[in-house]
Amino acid sequence: MTKVRIFVTYKQSVFDPQGETITEAVHSLGHNEVKEIKVGKFFDVTIDSREKEVGESVKEISEQLLVNFNLETYRYEIMEED
Amino acid sequence: MTKVRIFVTYKQSVFDPQGETITEAVHSLGHNEVKEIKVGKFFDVTIDSREKEVGESVKEISEQLLVNFNLETYRYEIMEED
Repeated sequence: MTKVRIFVTYKQSVFDPQGETITEAVHSLGHNEVKEIKVGKFFDVTIDSREKEVGESVKEISEQLLVNFNLETYRYEIMEED
Repeated sequence: MTKVRIFVTYKQSVFDPQGETITEAVHSLGHNEVKEIKVGKFFDVTIDSREKEVGESVKEISEQLLVNFNLETYRYEIMEED
């Protein structure tokens, strides 16, 4: 089994309203040391690499389901392999 | 400026309905190589470490705002430091 973490973030050019709101909330709590907060999501995916090559599987599920390519981009990291 | 990534996940004991639903959707697309998907969110936080110690800042904003300790847990990684 291989565990990968797929990170999905807004593209640079896309406004992140949730991040903006959280930054404001953090400032209102007095944390002026915080300059920016951006929000993203991640998916921890366990893949049986005997059934399919991991990179190919990640690419397919990202394109078919996990990522909205109009607004978002993704990258992934192998977390565990055996 | 220091950039940290704060990862927020459900505790082990807490059911992750979104992850379960996505796993089912991925299976219905024929990806039987995928055994499990768990969902989490992350916050990329830029902190001015001259104003406050980074670990302390992360702990405070996590406790005060970002993490629901009833259901969730967090860890963080330093991404960039200067």
